[in-house]
Amino acid sequence: MTPGEARSAQPNVGAKRALTLGVDVGGTKIRTALVDADGTVVASHRHPTDATEGPEGLMADIRACVGGCLGVEATQATSVGMGIAGQVDVGTGVLRFAPNLGWRDVPLKALLQDALDRPATVMNDVQAATWGEWRHGAGKGVHDIVCVFVGTGVGGGIVSGGQLVTGCSGAGGELGHVTLVEGGRDCRCRNRGCLEAYVGGWAIGERAQEAAADDPSGAESIIARAGGLVRAITAAHVSDAYHEGDSLASRLVTETARFMAAGLVGVVNTLNPCLLILGGGVIEGTPELIDLAEPQLRKRALAAAVEQLRVTRARLGGDAPVVGAASFARTVLLEAG
Amino acid sequence: MTPGEARSAQPNVGAKRALTLGVDVGGTKIRTALVDADGTVVASHRHPTDATEGPEGLMADIRACVGGCLGVEATQATSVGMGIAGQVDVGTGVLRFAPNLGWRDVPLKALLQDALDRPATVMNDVQAATWGEWRHGAGKGVHDIVCVFVGTGVGGGIVSGGQLVTGCSGAGGELGHVTLVEGGRDCRCRNRGCLEAYVGGWAIGERAQEAAADDPSGAESIIARAGGLVRAITAAHVSDAYHEGDSLASRLVTETARFMAAGLVGVVNTLNPCLLILGGGVIEGTPELIDLAEPQLRKRALAAAVEQLRVTRARLGGDAPVVGAASFARTVLLEAG
Repeated sequence: MTPGEARSAQPNVGAKRALTLGVDVGGTKIRTALVDADGTVVASHRHPTDATEGPEGLMADIRACVGGCLGVEATQATSVGMGIAGQVDVGTGVLRFAPNLGWRDVPLKALLQDALDRPATVMNDVQAATWGEWRHGAGKGVHDIVCVFVGTGVGGGIVSGGQLVTGCSGAGGELGHVTLVEGGRDCRCRNRGCLEAYVGGWAIGERAQEAAADDPSGAESIIARAGGLVRAITAAHVSDAYHEGDSLASRLVTETARFMAAGLVGVVNTLNPCLLILGGGVIEGTPELIDLAEPQLRKRALAAAVEQLRVTRARLGGDAPVVGAASFARTVLLEAG
Repeated sequence: MTPGEARSAQPNVGAKRALTLGVDVGGTKIRTALVDADGTVVASHRHPTDATEGPEGLMADIRACVGGCLGVEATQATSVGMGIAGQVDVGTGVLRFAPNLGWRDVPLKALLQDALDRPATVMNDVQAATWGEWRHGAGKGVHDIVCVFVGTGVGGGIVSGGQLVTGCSGAGGELGHVTLVEGGRDCRCRNRGCLEAYVGGWAIGERAQEAAADDPSGAESIIARAGGLVRAITAAHVSDAYHEGDSLASRLVTETARFMAAGLVGVVNTLNPCLLILGGGVIEGTPELIDLAEPQLRKRALAAAVEQLRVTRARLGGDAPVVGAASFARTVLLEAG
């Protein structure tokens, strides 16, 4: 099937059958997937990112995947959508900056189109995950959603009035960096007091390390999980200890939920979504955070902002970026066709 | 001219000539204006709000105005747009709740159409002001803007990708109620630590009163302006004292700018606007707040979120809600026609 065929007189019929490629380029791994029109991953492949091989190396890897590990069906994909951990101009498909890869001003869309000989779209990976949850996951059919992905860092994505909020320079949805405590904890961005500096996985680890250093005897169980090293404590150790009833872990999780609720109050008052979708490794590891945070969110946000709000878990897990990137390509290219 | 004529074969020509009515219903005053296609207020009238007379009384007031104080031209207005201090379902034109008036579930659009015998739209007043600044004020021609109006309270409005963000239940843009200090100062909403609780006019007054109570001798100049009564100190007294070089006022303004910047960091990281428009009585009284806050905002927000950001003052002042409401009616009704 050539790209032209996707623009047939019956695009919906064509779209239903058509397969699309999704590529998720992170700081440590590249995931390539073949995705159908329902957002189902038909085949996928993962390998480590090698930033030193440059964008051309990335293209060679993807091309090899399409001709090989994704199976023969992949050669029939009508288009390709990429999500990448960085700032992207969605209109031109130019990667402005990817801090983890050290790449700047790379015309990824043009490179992808050349490498795979089919139309392409490029977007930020968290925006891709948001698109995926919106079109095929927990947000299906809802016009106003906000996704907050709490992993090592905290990222977010916004769909407002049925439109993905990319912002002026592609950086829209950086919900991990709303101020939560003016002048508070140092964040990995250059600011202080961001939401991420309290609830991101790295921050939970730091808070746990501080608590353990303050009171080692109360932290015995958590320290043991970290091989006896306070500075090796991570959010995963806290989560494990929490699920076995450890009291320090319980306090840390309760505090994390309180910070999360305070940050989400601002997000919900700002955007008044119908649906708030929470995902990412920290939420997957400790889904109780949602049950702990939601009542506080409802109590503290403006009544008008929560009266129609639903809060739910993300549904696509790690598939969200590839599914979203593929779905975005399908949608944008069909609309243009 | 009848409503039907606005839907002529050449809508743009018709629109250019056409006049539209704008109505701004606040807690204390009603403003009615005749607005042309360029957003110029041709005639306007203001009178106090009497919530006890109910929605029917409001309609009678507006009808009297159109037939009288706004001049004979007003009878030719093709449509009417209302902005009201409350939560509005823009689609149906039903006022869900107006806390200042104590009104709930009032079908204002239908009432307006009946009263004035022409098509109407109804929206939240701050969203109307945002629309006004976007179409005819400081935000003209820009697709991604955020307005923050710092008056007694703090309100906001968002245009993302050329679309007004109203949210799921009409409450989008409540930027005064983003969390700034988790567990911080009591806000007039039911939460603590909101941006408004630090930079709203009432909060600046409270902070000044606290500073004056702590150190009356250092606050002599401000206390004198308030007639010798610490509890009578307002944001206006602080502003006046600041402009005459008072040191406590200077400290208060510096702190207000720091809080404002911290709140705006979250707003800008969330939405990545091209343009941030600051208005409202506190900004108009102390425009230096922008110069003090902007460098901190640029330093503390994500680089990608500010690299294309401009910050500017609102241009329409108190006209913004009537101009925006009128312009919104014109746009929506022409598009529908």
